[in-house]
Amino acid sequence: MEFKARLLEIEAGGNLIVVMGVRDAERLGIISSDRVRLETGESEVVAILNIASEFPEGTLGIYEEVKSRLGLSEGDVVQVKPAERPESLGFIREKILGEKLTARKIGTIVDEVVERHLSDIELASFVTALQIHGMSMEEVEALSLAMVKAGKTITFGKEPILDKHSIGGVPGDKTTLLVVPIVAAAGYTIPKSSSRAITSPAGTADRMEALCPVDLRLDEIVEVVEKVNACIVWGGALDLAPADDLFIRVEYPLAIDPLLLPSILSKKKAMGSTHIVIDIPTGREVKIKTLDQAHLLARDFIELGGRLGMHVECAITEGEQPIGCAVGPVLEARESLEALMGRGPPDLIEKATSLAGILFEMVGEEDGKAKAQKLLSSGKAEEKLRQIIEAQGGDPEVEPEDLAVGDKWVDIKAERGGRVLWIKNMDIAQIARTAGAPSDKGAGLMLMVKMGDEVAEGDTLFRVYAETAQRRDNAEAIAEKLDPIVIGRRIGERMLIKQVKGVARRGTEFILER
Amino acid sequence: MEFKARLLEIEAGGNLIVVMGVRDAERLGIISSDRVRLETGESEVVAILNIASEFPEGTLGIYEEVKSRLGLSEGDVVQVKPAERPESLGFIREKILGEKLTARKIGTIVDEVVERHLSDIELASFVTALQIHGMSMEEVEALSLAMVKAGKTITFGKEPILDKHSIGGVPGDKTTLLVVPIVAAAGYTIPKSSSRAITSPAGTADRMEALCPVDLRLDEIVEVVEKVNACIVWGGALDLAPADDLFIRVEYPLAIDPLLLPSILSKKKAMGSTHIVIDIPTGREVKIKTLDQAHLLARDFIELGGRLGMHVECAITEGEQPIGCAVGPVLEARESLEALMGRGPPDLIEKATSLAGILFEMVGEEDGKAKAQKLLSSGKAEEKLRQIIEAQGGDPEVEPEDLAVGDKWVDIKAERGGRVLWIKNMDIAQIARTAGAPSDKGAGLMLMVKMGDEVAEGDTLFRVYAETAQRRDNAEAIAEKLDPIVIGRRIGERMLIKQVKGVARRGTEFILER
Repeated sequence: MEFKARLLEIEAGGNLIVVMGVRDAERLGIISSDRVRLETGESEVVAILNIASEFPEGTLGIYEEVKSRLGLSEGDVVQVKPAERPESLGFIREKILGEKLTARKIGTIVDEVVERHLSDIELASFVTALQIHGMSMEEVEALSLAMVKAGKTITFGKEPILDKHSIGGVPGDKTTLLVVPIVAAAGYTIPKSSSRAITSPAGTADRMEALCPVDLRLDEIVEVVEKVNACIVWGGALDLAPADDLFIRVEYPLAIDPLLLPSILSKKKAMGSTHIVIDIPTGREVKIKTLDQAHLLARDFIELGGRLGMHVECAITEGEQPIGCAVGPVLEARESLEALMGRGPPDLIEKATSLAGILFEMVGEEDGKAKAQKLLSSGKAEEKLRQIIEAQGGDPEVEPEDLAVGDKWVDIKAERGGRVLWIKNMDIAQIARTAGAPSDKGAGLMLMVKMGDEVAEGDTLFRVYAETAQRRDNAEAIAEKLDPIVIGRRIGERMLIKQVKGVARRGTEFILER
Repeated sequence: MEFKARLLEIEAGGNLIVVMGVRDAERLGIISSDRVRLETGESEVVAILNIASEFPEGTLGIYEEVKSRLGLSEGDVVQVKPAERPESLGFIREKILGEKLTARKIGTIVDEVVERHLSDIELASFVTALQIHGMSMEEVEALSLAMVKAGKTITFGKEPILDKHSIGGVPGDKTTLLVVPIVAAAGYTIPKSSSRAITSPAGTADRMEALCPVDLRLDEIVEVVEKVNACIVWGGALDLAPADDLFIRVEYPLAIDPLLLPSILSKKKAMGSTHIVIDIPTGREVKIKTLDQAHLLARDFIELGGRLGMHVECAITEGEQPIGCAVGPVLEARESLEALMGRGPPDLIEKATSLAGILFEMVGEEDGKAKAQKLLSSGKAEEKLRQIIEAQGGDPEVEPEDLAVGDKWVDIKAERGGRVLWIKNMDIAQIARTAGAPSDKGAGLMLMVKMGDEVAEGDTLFRVYAETAQRRDNAEAIAEKLDPIVIGRRIGERMLIKQVKGVARRGTEFILER
């Protein structure tokens, strides 16, 4: 059937979608979510059909994605025919029914996801089925390889390529900004692609962006790494394992995460990594709550890494309070720089040198941690970070004081004296986000106390920074409502964590970052 | 933050969606699929946010549904704030994690589905989780009641209200067009709402529409039923259990059907039914393949009916071949009318009188089937159908010959002689749909043979009707490729049903009609 193109001048979130009226659809014998083949004289594409109750007859509504695929102008003639269902719908159905999928079937699904042949509904069903049924290690391997194959890859022409990744969830975890320069200062290559915050107050890319540009193209990354052995860039636009960005759209609203392993390791494989340390923070308010869970996950990371030809080790780390004191993009960049200059909080330094030390030992060095400490205290790691900043287009002479934090601030004070027994990650993250982080780069908070510290009534517990008075006041109000820092006179004094009564509304207790 | 409305002049399939550019979203600290609260001076609404990579700053793209809720004009100022996530997301997540949901939680989900607070992604995850984990009878009951509560209901001011429903899947199953007039001719009230075809060649509403209008409003239905005790109308626009139409959008592409029970019985409850017979066709090419499956489903229908205060009985029926000979809207209407006039195929009459007989016995009559046969042979049922046709606005004097079938036809002939051993429902449906049914009302096919019949080589097996020569030729080509009618010299002669080799591509073997 022949239609006239009506350009809608709007994107469909990357999907290939066209719209027609209900009468036209009836005449074609198709219903919403069926596929149609669109043909002009020169090109053709298969799109997903949406049906509108009111739409002029003989007219086909064209979203931007279809317009650019077919090179359409307003009023152009398009031939529309019913098209076959994507092959992967049958495979997704098999997974829903609990069957194991072969590598070929998984490859077809990933290809059709990346080619945008699947609707949001179909993608959501697939991800939900993966969450419920789980995947065998064979399926995870096949999915990882398919995700690598469907995207771009990068080669640096040398080995080993080291990397470090945290599964995330601890506010203020700026460890990468120390580990990368420490490792690179020893002469190893460590090209780090990282993410921006989704539900946290800052991602590594947000932190690094306070020091230099992070939106580098693949060829620029190769150049930077050739020059200084390392980079810390935003991986989101590199088109490494692009299926993952589509899966994440499904995982985010429901706070499910069935693709954790293939998502992380496919991106490492695409970056050419050979030796990777995976940081698994463990605590009551991070993703992995128990040591058992952490061990199982570590085992899977190591096995999958091996199947993909990479040497993976895991570090199960403390996640019961934020790392260091700063939370928020600029505040964390400043704290990282200070730490490399020898004035860092002990937990941050201990964590960074431990992880760098593991990487050193993975490539055959002895006393890895001592080596890392030496590279830090000698100033070589600081020097390396400044080289990276310069290579990525920032100012290598930057001083911590140059980094502008929000000028509206408020101190949150202790209502009683005692010892800090617990700092709640989720509450800290919420306060920092309410203050404006990560979109307001200078917003966030600085902890003045950490677990175990003694405080007197009226002492400042933390300072909230914001870029507007309104957000500062909102953050203060949230801080007073929550109980982010638990103080008692001695450990064991406050045994009641939470009173549950009536209908307990369960939070998601989950920060989706990877 | 303040935005200028840009009207997109397109529907979002009923969903409440707005669009903004990626920079604006970053400034608001929200990502795609987050909720935003939109406020004008007069009204407000919570919508789902889509983010476009290219969209003018400070501009909010408004789909039709949001436009009409807020009464917006182009360029109007809209205040936009991040909004809370819908409460049901947490409950859907619980179901994904395998928990049982309380009636309150299920009620919240259904309400938020109907109010369009959930995205396609979230809806798809919920339906997929229901498919995989199943539901307890308590959950099914709660879901059914919530679906009734979220829609309109109808009362006829008298009892009993009888009804009949088939879970579908057998081509040519026009039994309703006989059962309703038989039951009504006995003085009982039987208001039948039915569906149009989704993936089959004809639904009951499509068949009835060949005789009279079926798009009646609720008040018109009440009037018709008051006058003639019965109706056969399209239920799709009555807003009975509207959640179901939204769930079906998810089930269709993946050919899953977790909501069969609550979907059917919530609509019956909304129609005020008190006594219902559920027809469960059983066969290798319908939804329910084995007698065991049929018994389990029947048990659940009966129990759920009881919980909802309705008397339900089930009829497990033959589904190994089409019912009667006609397949396609007009062809089936014609065959139904002929059957009521005493010239019907024996299997159709046997099935219709069996089901009507069960209903009679459910309300206390004896020898129900004999009563049904008498109402049929006496012409009273025919008279009643003509009354219904007239009350719904059709011509009560309609004769079978008045109903126009497609004038392009072709006969498909036997390539060998013998006995008809099997007629494949899926193939028959596909041929009729290829000929144009159900959108071409006069398209379809007439079987000249049924199972057990003797045929000689060259005898006509069935005649395909189409409204265009092109579709007739397409249907003929499909008919020759498939093997819809299996002929052998004696039962047992052709033991091989299908040869499976290499990678067997599994069809869905599923017709989604209910």
